[in-house]
Amino acid sequence: MKFVRFGRPGAERPGLVDSGGRIRDLSAIVPDITGAALGQGLAARVAGVSVDNLPLVPEGTRLGPCLGNVGNFIAIGLNYADHATETGAAIPKEPILFNKARSCIVGPNDDVVLPPDSVKSDWEVELAFVMSKTASYVSEADALSHVGGYFICNDVSEREYQLEREGQWMKGKCCPTFGPIGPWLVTPDEVGDPQDLALWLEVNGERVQNGSTRTMIFPIARLVADLSRYMILEPGDIVTTGTPPGVGLGMKPPRFLKRGDTMRLGIEKLGEQQQRVV
Amino acid sequence: MKFVRFGRPGAERPGLVDSGGRIRDLSAIVPDITGAALGQGLAARVAGVSVDNLPLVPEGTRLGPCLGNVGNFIAIGLNYADHATETGAAIPKEPILFNKARSCIVGPNDDVVLPPDSVKSDWEVELAFVMSKTASYVSEADALSHVGGYFICNDVSEREYQLEREGQWMKGKCCPTFGPIGPWLVTPDEVGDPQDLALWLEVNGERVQNGSTRTMIFPIARLVADLSRYMILEPGDIVTTGTPPGVGLGMKPPRFLKRGDTMRLGIEKLGEQQQRVV
Repeated sequence: MKFVRFGRPGAERPGLVDSGGRIRDLSAIVPDITGAALGQGLAARVAGVSVDNLPLVPEGTRLGPCLGNVGNFIAIGLNYADHATETGAAIPKEPILFNKARSCIVGPNDDVVLPPDSVKSDWEVELAFVMSKTASYVSEADALSHVGGYFICNDVSEREYQLEREGQWMKGKCCPTFGPIGPWLVTPDEVGDPQDLALWLEVNGERVQNGSTRTMIFPIARLVADLSRYMILEPGDIVTTGTPPGVGLGMKPPRFLKRGDTMRLGIEKLGEQQQRVV
Repeated sequence: MKFVRFGRPGAERPGLVDSGGRIRDLSAIVPDITGAALGQGLAARVAGVSVDNLPLVPEGTRLGPCLGNVGNFIAIGLNYADHATETGAAIPKEPILFNKARSCIVGPNDDVVLPPDSVKSDWEVELAFVMSKTASYVSEADALSHVGGYFICNDVSEREYQLEREGQWMKGKCCPTFGPIGPWLVTPDEVGDPQDLALWLEVNGERVQNGSTRTMIFPIARLVADLSRYMILEPGDIVTTGTPPGVGLGMKPPRFLKRGDTMRLGIEKLGEQQQRVV
């Protein structure tokens, strides 16, 4: 099942992608697409509805972030061995955690705004997931039952803020518009194995990132289990799981985003995003 | 004005400390004490109420966290020159940012639970504040008008998790119960100058931290202005502003919390907290 949120920023409504790829309005079924709603059986409820009777959303309607009422926005650093190498970092022995701010979240095709003094803004295609159940000290075997769905996140990063301004990394990860998520929130049954998804990113039509979640150092189940030892994960918390090789910082010479650039990115089964850089 | 929240965990109700130090039930006036409510004139509304007619809360009622519906829980590292020195770190040239998880927040006198394998849990008395208005690229001169109130935070920290487990710092800052806040949320008019408050912490009756917010490297106004350049600060976001010298990590030899210890901590005008370590 593919959930979306549509409408103008801050006033998005819940929707569903039907078998024909059209968006249906779910407002009559649920107030919003949230981690809590997913944990309370949203997918089962929608499965019992006759989708063809739900109102069609006009084509061209803006897509918002695919999840509402986000709690904590957690991120994993250097979770692909090749990406760790390209940035000159050692391969971590356990997951590296940092935070984004939920106030940076935007829709999948909204503009990405460079901060006024940004000279090193960079892209990162990532597989993200949302917690639908509270998790504290869960085992790897039980971890995935706490996940409500998967989606694409572009973990946009200002490298000067992140690395050259007295730390920690979150300093370059939270700027407004630095967290496009969506287009769809796809339920686990439809994703299948989250560790076997191709992912890629293009800048101005040139393929710069190309990878597979197969090469993650710490798979999703391990991440949930580990995180749940360091904090209580709550429904609505989201985790973005690190990026494969091909970021601008790793290029020789490094290459960063400039006004007028276009990013296009996708993950197998999870759709595509496209952002203009302004 | 001093706001509190009282009642059992997860079901706290809003309250006010009256001129006699008793707690009055504010449930009839406002659903909860939140950053948004503070920004929408909660203090002015309560000022227009006859406090003596509000129901008294029975003495001994548990105090919860002094703020509900917390957004992002941001923390500042090494913000007192003496504390930076005791931990062996250089004095930062601009604020160091990291994150706590809002799921670690507990009441001011609730137990602090050591993680099962914790060997280096530590204390940090800190002045914290809540945003009551959205702040993005605000000036230092305008910054404090976005703050809704001040309160004590014990930024409990597991140093092994924070410093010896592949980073970032948040790994040791988010464990359940690692964020006691309160007892009171005190409005800015009653605090006066937030840069002239004594603060202290005792472990088992022994004074270990003793400082003043006068010696902060980056004062609150600077923190708000700086943070607002790295992210949009939203009503309900809280910021804890760093700790003065005297943490266990800085002792020779280092000293850490063990089961059965008691922490007592206070900040001038903001009351006191006391936690048992279990």
